[in-house]
Amino acid sequence: MTIRTTGSRVPRPTMTDVAKAAGVSQTTVSFVLNNRTDVSIPHETRKRIHQAAADLGYRENVMAQALRLGKSKLIGLVTDEIATTPYAGLIIRGMQDAAWRYGRILTLVNTDCRADMEIKAVETLLKHQVDGLLFATMFHHEIALPPILGDMPVALVNCYSADASAPAVVPDEKQGGYDATCYLLERGHRDIGFLTKDESIPATRGRLAGYRRALAEADLPFRDDRVVAFTGDQEAGFRGAMTLMRQPDRPSALFCFNDRLAMGAYTALQTLGLRVPDDVSIIGFDNQEIIAAHLLPTLTTIQLPHYEMGRWGVDRLFSDIPAPAAHMLLTCPLVERNSVAPLKLSITA
Amino acid sequence: MTIRTTGSRVPRPTMTDVAKAAGVSQTTVSFVLNNRTDVSIPHETRKRIHQAAADLGYRENVMAQALRLGKSKLIGLVTDEIATTPYAGLIIRGMQDAAWRYGRILTLVNTDCRADMEIKAVETLLKHQVDGLLFATMFHHEIALPPILGDMPVALVNCYSADASAPAVVPDEKQGGYDATCYLLERGHRDIGFLTKDESIPATRGRLAGYRRALAEADLPFRDDRVVAFTGDQEAGFRGAMTLMRQPDRPSALFCFNDRLAMGAYTALQTLGLRVPDDVSIIGFDNQEIIAAHLLPTLTTIQLPHYEMGRWGVDRLFSDIPAPAAHMLLTCPLVERNSVAPLKLSITA
Repeated sequence: MTIRTTGSRVPRPTMTDVAKAAGVSQTTVSFVLNNRTDVSIPHETRKRIHQAAADLGYRENVMAQALRLGKSKLIGLVTDEIATTPYAGLIIRGMQDAAWRYGRILTLVNTDCRADMEIKAVETLLKHQVDGLLFATMFHHEIALPPILGDMPVALVNCYSADASAPAVVPDEKQGGYDATCYLLERGHRDIGFLTKDESIPATRGRLAGYRRALAEADLPFRDDRVVAFTGDQEAGFRGAMTLMRQPDRPSALFCFNDRLAMGAYTALQTLGLRVPDDVSIIGFDNQEIIAAHLLPTLTTIQLPHYEMGRWGVDRLFSDIPAPAAHMLLTCPLVERNSVAPLKLSITA
Repeated sequence: MTIRTTGSRVPRPTMTDVAKAAGVSQTTVSFVLNNRTDVSIPHETRKRIHQAAADLGYRENVMAQALRLGKSKLIGLVTDEIATTPYAGLIIRGMQDAAWRYGRILTLVNTDCRADMEIKAVETLLKHQVDGLLFATMFHHEIALPPILGDMPVALVNCYSADASAPAVVPDEKQGGYDATCYLLERGHRDIGFLTKDESIPATRGRLAGYRRALAEADLPFRDDRVVAFTGDQEAGFRGAMTLMRQPDRPSALFCFNDRLAMGAYTALQTLGLRVPDDVSIIGFDNQEIIAAHLLPTLTTIQLPHYEMGRWGVDRLFSDIPAPAAHMLLTCPLVERNSVAPLKLSITA
């Protein structure tokens, strides 16, 4: 068995080595390997040079090019936690897919939400001469950009800066909340509870605004007692659903701020002997596959456009897509599964 | 509002610019900015140079250093899906934390499990002169290393190559299965079902081997009918638990191959009117926080050492930690929560 060691490496073959092996000048090698078609070089010579390069294992040195052209072909990504959490990984996939299209790869630094780490991360990426910088956050919120960015192209994904000094893409939270509520209204529900999170962030504010707007458009009153807010996890969903379902005139449907709250609500309803969706319809938000696609019944929910936001960020760095007015809002589409049923009229109705 | 454009950049200030501004030679600037203490330079001059560098926004060029020293300070990471799935993100966190210690950052390419993408990914990373290459997979399995690695330092994380040509770190699946089963045995359970996945992979083989060994050491028979295998998701856990629990002499405890199966088993037990852990104890595997920490009751499970494996991979590239015999096996610790209770003797016992 061979185990690779971490020892020093044999120097890589250079263009000069290829030139020597092929018996031509280094300039000729450069013309051929860089596919310069504006220079006339005999086919035979081209063939010999390619052969010599292959024999020597010559490999184009992107770092040398970077130094020459000022382009490293690296995109720097500064994230708080998305690379290491089970939540917004699709942002990275969207960025990677787009990066490939531009012949670039992603270099990643996680800051663990620490401001000192962020400065260090940005400095490190700038030293590596990245061609552009992306900032991405696990959940939609405002960030302060470090003051050392200079003229580096920057795009913000799932976050935004207060002074709008860099283009930003975020989910359209209000549209998502509106569409979720309308979906329930269209199925006859007139009394819809909103289980949310007790924190003022763009997602809670936007989704609540969408919920209220949908109710208003349907000429339904907004009732304070129908909005329950604890933390954002399953336990809070359990507690919140218990609170709403024990009200004497309980709502016929619940809009949950996220899928984790919906999962807790399922358990609460089961505990109370109520069935989803026959007795109570539930709609979630986020589309966290591991929960939403596998609850019993599967959960109808609103998807966050993580992939699309990641792709937009890279496109914004390298193409001429128009700069948005302030933030670019991406639509949160509805994912239809089995947790919503049309309202059944009760005997006393 | 200012929107950054993607236009061309102003050239970066060089050491020559700093020298000119400080009125010294470029060599002196180099000595000072590289913290050479073996050269005597007046404090006043050092101060002037640092000031000039700060004023100009001069930044060390890692790419130029890389070219000179053959060290890019980049670690290349080739992954199948871990960067974009809700599963093994802690591998990346472990790598990042270790990378920082070695003054390096992680450059990431996702291959989407496609062999052609893998070759392309490796070639791209090699062109960027990475100082070492890590291969990591979402779940523990064998991989074939591409033939173009040359003498590049390589380490495999959560995967291994058949010819053991590169050092590899994987979870100790057998120990995990053994510890899970022993935990139930120690609490008096003598009849333990095993809900697993119908695929022959190191995890299914290892966890089953651990389960069998624990039973054998406790002088308990291994019963084929107590092992049920479908797919690895919640639906399979539901179906598997239904199968086992409808047997006339049902087991008093279930060891589930993963937390998703355990989640499905919870729903099955609830459907059958059985309580966790009062009627049936359940133990999972993987410790997927979003499920395990938030089921009702919370799930006792075995943790995959994702973080530790990631860290090990980077350490293996840059330090002299001993090469393992074949694969380095890391322990899967037990995470104690609330889904296991001591066996209650029934009236007929």
